[in-house]
Amino acid sequence: MPEAPPLAVSMGDPAGIGPEIIAKAWAARRPHRLAPFFAVGDPRAVKQVWDGPIVPITDPDQAVAAFEDGLPVIAAADAGEVVPGMPDIDGARCALQSLELAAGLARSCAAGAVVTGPVSKKQLYDIGFTYPGQTEFVAERCGVARENAVMMLAGPTLRVVPITTHIPLKSVAATISIELIVAKARATARGLQRNFGIAAPRLAFAGFNPHAGEGGAIGTEEIEYLIPAIEQLKAEGIDADGPFAADTMFHPRARALYDVALCLYHDQALIPIKTLHFDEGVNMTLGLPIVRTSPDHGTAFGIAGQNRAEPGAMIAAIRMAAQAAAVRRASTIQ
Amino acid sequence: MPEAPPLAVSMGDPAGIGPEIIAKAWAARRPHRLAPFFAVGDPRAVKQVWDGPIVPITDPDQAVAAFEDGLPVIAAADAGEVVPGMPDIDGARCALQSLELAAGLARSCAAGAVVTGPVSKKQLYDIGFTYPGQTEFVAERCGVARENAVMMLAGPTLRVVPITTHIPLKSVAATISIELIVAKARATARGLQRNFGIAAPRLAFAGFNPHAGEGGAIGTEEIEYLIPAIEQLKAEGIDADGPFAADTMFHPRARALYDVALCLYHDQALIPIKTLHFDEGVNMTLGLPIVRTSPDHGTAFGIAGQNRAEPGAMIAAIRMAAQAAAVRRASTIQ
Repeated sequence: MPEAPPLAVSMGDPAGIGPEIIAKAWAARRPHRLAPFFAVGDPRAVKQVWDGPIVPITDPDQAVAAFEDGLPVIAAADAGEVVPGMPDIDGARCALQSLELAAGLARSCAAGAVVTGPVSKKQLYDIGFTYPGQTEFVAERCGVARENAVMMLAGPTLRVVPITTHIPLKSVAATISIELIVAKARATARGLQRNFGIAAPRLAFAGFNPHAGEGGAIGTEEIEYLIPAIEQLKAEGIDADGPFAADTMFHPRARALYDVALCLYHDQALIPIKTLHFDEGVNMTLGLPIVRTSPDHGTAFGIAGQNRAEPGAMIAAIRMAAQAAAVRRASTIQ
Repeated sequence: MPEAPPLAVSMGDPAGIGPEIIAKAWAARRPHRLAPFFAVGDPRAVKQVWDGPIVPITDPDQAVAAFEDGLPVIAAADAGEVVPGMPDIDGARCALQSLELAAGLARSCAAGAVVTGPVSKKQLYDIGFTYPGQTEFVAERCGVARENAVMMLAGPTLRVVPITTHIPLKSVAATISIELIVAKARATARGLQRNFGIAAPRLAFAGFNPHAGEGGAIGTEEIEYLIPAIEQLKAEGIDADGPFAADTMFHPRARALYDVALCLYHDQALIPIKTLHFDEGVNMTLGLPIVRTSPDHGTAFGIAGQNRAEPGAMIAAIRMAAQAAAVRRASTIQ
């Protein structure tokens, strides 16, 4: 079996905590048994916030050997003068070029996966970025329609998929459809097979209304959308169950009964995962030809450059990406 | 200081797990240091599921002395033949009479508080009960309009108030108003003062939309309702804060910053509390002249009579009621 390629980690906004948490993840590589990775971005952004060893590399091939001596970094772009906590146009351009290069290296199999550091959407929009977020950008670079890329948030004891994300809560009922639910669920089931090696993933659907609508007494979205979607998925051989009352789905005994919870709106999915796993939540995109993860937090400009950023979520994102890449390699090679 | 009166615990539906968990709470009175209480209901419902000692009493005055020898029970009504797991009309009548007597004893100060066992709403509706639940019934028996009674759910590390409860999610935006939010928040603040002795309770409001609406970019309910309500509460001297992104409000560091989270809809409040404290959640009614708590679970007919019911939530409800009664007594007497 050939050696596993290293992981590409894009730095995100150079003025955010991305460079610091990548460096701290490298420093913690031994206790966390992290697979070799390299950073993609402006090495000066790391030097400014960290005094550990950096090994400049120009090709992912060099990363595995360099990894024991220091943090391998491919210089993707010039971030200009970086002031931690003060994002600017040059930094946004650097973040975007780092993302593009890192995703491209994963797409070409030079990297085993891409882990994306946190970016500032506002800064990216200022330089003409037209995607809702990094997920859609990576999907399109992979030739996947953004509708077919599924955002999954995962922690040690829970995985959730929000079927809708950043839309007003009032608009959710008008946005969901049987087709949307089925499409997201299919991609989710397939993603758990490919990235986690779960042969028959168990999908649990959260009801939309209190008590999952109590048979129509408290709302009808379960009857109109969820139950038909679940029936269709079952007919396709997918282990789909529910809809369940959302409030009683996330305690430990309930979580043991499924591999992923599918929720119809943002807070229904993100409240339980962030309540349980705030410091170690990983965002994984399913439905892509590559493995892509990200720490489930933002740029945290307010604490950037103060050596206060916790690398837990970045470490978890790197670990999950490496494990998923290994599962994919095993299923391809064996 | 006179002796604290015992607590009245209504049995709830005699065919549910109420009798069993009350008996088990009594059996666990020493390790949990439970204050003296007595059950109100048909003693035969307890005898059928438990072989421990029962002490029939006719007056709450006898409960404290009897408490060491057995579970004191005031026979409130005849439940007829009780088959655990098989609710019927006689049982529903017994549950209602038990509730009425227990609440009345608390109202007359013969009991220090009322703890209500789980009832079956469906059974109660069959005998002509016209209240949405026990909360509204107790409120009205106390002379309080049901609108002014606030349901709070509490566990060891979190208290939440859902401002709306069992209505379709789609209807929530049209149901909330500045007045409703302010009224519920006032009752909540006053309730935390009276029942928990918190001089200046810190109220944190959850946003309605993802990321609390991002300044109007993802929904406007924050701007229309929440921000004006919070401003009004602040002007009244209440420590109200937010609206906060709901998904980042419930991890341990965030929870340390407030005494109660106010949420606009059922699942927003109940997902975090049940994710964290599923087996020890207590429902407390604020805004009443008496202390009323309840274990935050249902009748569990499916496991009734099988000695499988966990008394944790009932024990927590009894403890919280006793503590709240003590806080009230101290503030009255001292």
